[in-house]
Amino acid sequence: MGWKRSERLIDMTHYFMQHPNTLISLPFFSERYSAAKSSISEDLSILKDTFEKQGIGKLVTIPGAAGGVKYYVQVKDNMVKPFVEELCQILEHPNRLLPGGYLYMADIIGNPVLMDQVGRMLASKFSERPIDAVMTVATKGIPLAYATAKYLNVPVVIVRRDYKITEGSTVSINYVTGSSKRIQTMLLAKRSLDEGAKVLIVDDFMKAGGTINGMISLLKEFNADYEGIAVLVEAEDVPNRLVDEYISIVKLQDVNVESKKIKVREGNYFSKGE
Amino acid sequence: MGWKRSERLIDMTHYFMQHPNTLISLPFFSERYSAAKSSISEDLSILKDTFEKQGIGKLVTIPGAAGGVKYYVQVKDNMVKPFVEELCQILEHPNRLLPGGYLYMADIIGNPVLMDQVGRMLASKFSERPIDAVMTVATKGIPLAYATAKYLNVPVVIVRRDYKITEGSTVSINYVTGSSKRIQTMLLAKRSLDEGAKVLIVDDFMKAGGTINGMISLLKEFNADYEGIAVLVEAEDVPNRLVDEYISIVKLQDVNVESKKIKVREGNYFSKGE
Repeated sequence: MGWKRSERLIDMTHYFMQHPNTLISLPFFSERYSAAKSSISEDLSILKDTFEKQGIGKLVTIPGAAGGVKYYVQVKDNMVKPFVEELCQILEHPNRLLPGGYLYMADIIGNPVLMDQVGRMLASKFSERPIDAVMTVATKGIPLAYATAKYLNVPVVIVRRDYKITEGSTVSINYVTGSSKRIQTMLLAKRSLDEGAKVLIVDDFMKAGGTINGMISLLKEFNADYEGIAVLVEAEDVPNRLVDEYISIVKLQDVNVESKKIKVREGNYFSKGE
Repeated sequence: MGWKRSERLIDMTHYFMQHPNTLISLPFFSERYSAAKSSISEDLSILKDTFEKQGIGKLVTIPGAAGGVKYYVQVKDNMVKPFVEELCQILEHPNRLLPGGYLYMADIIGNPVLMDQVGRMLASKFSERPIDAVMTVATKGIPLAYATAKYLNVPVVIVRRDYKITEGSTVSINYVTGSSKRIQTMLLAKRSLDEGAKVLIVDDFMKAGGTINGMISLLKEFNADYEGIAVLVEAEDVPNRLVDEYISIVKLQDVNVESKKIKVREGNYFSKGE
């Protein structure tokens, strides 16, 4: 029935990956592997070093009776730079151009491996911040919100544009879209967010920031607040952007409908601290 | 610069978990760790045994020049039974009852750890089947569709009920809802699904099966077909259900609005083979 160190290391790696941002007590592992606390401590020190070396994340030990060990995802910039460059190239394909200068992105948003990677990147910027929930608006922000929330181990709160009976009581607000200045409605189930919650707002795309601004207004109705804003794609420089502090993975530099040229560059992700 | 076995095992576990259902060549690992092929083979055999013992999954070696190793997620029934029982209890809370006998489930769907677990379960039923994409309908099926698709390493295709300019050209159909016999529309971006694709249909809830039936009709328009149907919750026994072959995680046995009693039982997941 004894576990070898190699088996423990494999299982612990899997366990941490399934439980990011979760405090796990040392006795839990001791029991799981019928192993002495000293052996578990040695295991953890090997894991810690390898996780750091390989950009898997950070293992933090919290001492004391209520202590334990916590795995934070922490991506190294140099390890994800090639990924972001590739993403830029994928987005630059002239095939993506839709009437009106919009870009087709459903395949990118529909790629769970890619979303997971971006989620890891965003989560590692916020993993040690006091985030209670990730908020997004239906539909296209949902995949990225989940990918991010999974690594932060917090729930996802989905704002809707239309009422559904399965939401129960809702709070709704009107907001003005940033680019076209139309009035729109968004709503959120009353019981989906606690008062005072700290929220990370995530979306797939930001132009003038009207939708994100709408979510911020909605948060106020819940006496909640945002701790950060993160988007996959930000549009080319917009005058009077409604949102000033945000993280973007990539940036549309130029979309030329006539020549069918799209220029996409790295966003501000790598230049922003935590 | 040498890697110890323990470090390799940790990194390989992480790598496989990030790349399920993906063929990885042995030279890839040899190079990554500057290690002999024989060492990598030994590593893989340790991983294989531990993955199986712990219900992490299956490592399959494909021999030959174009071969390599593939990690399939494979959940053991006895390891997830307690999880499903807990889910039933969570769903039975009388607080969930909404007017009209609907259940509030936004918190369950909003829990990425829970969705990931259900996604693992569904993926392990279909991991060795020829699935090209996971299909769902906006909004509430999306989280589970992603969780499942991530483990299958296939894209997610999201059917919508309303047209959005960012979809490009779409194909739309009308369908009759199963319970209330209303006519509804659903649509899918033309370029989101290849002809002949084999699809796994995933949704959060199934009553009479009208929505799922709608997705099946939509698939026909793409000359595509479904390889399986899976839902998180199926409603209590419905006469004339439109869909007959499906997998469900839990089943609403009885919803009594007057006495505020909800009875939820294990679905057919554990009694269905692959």
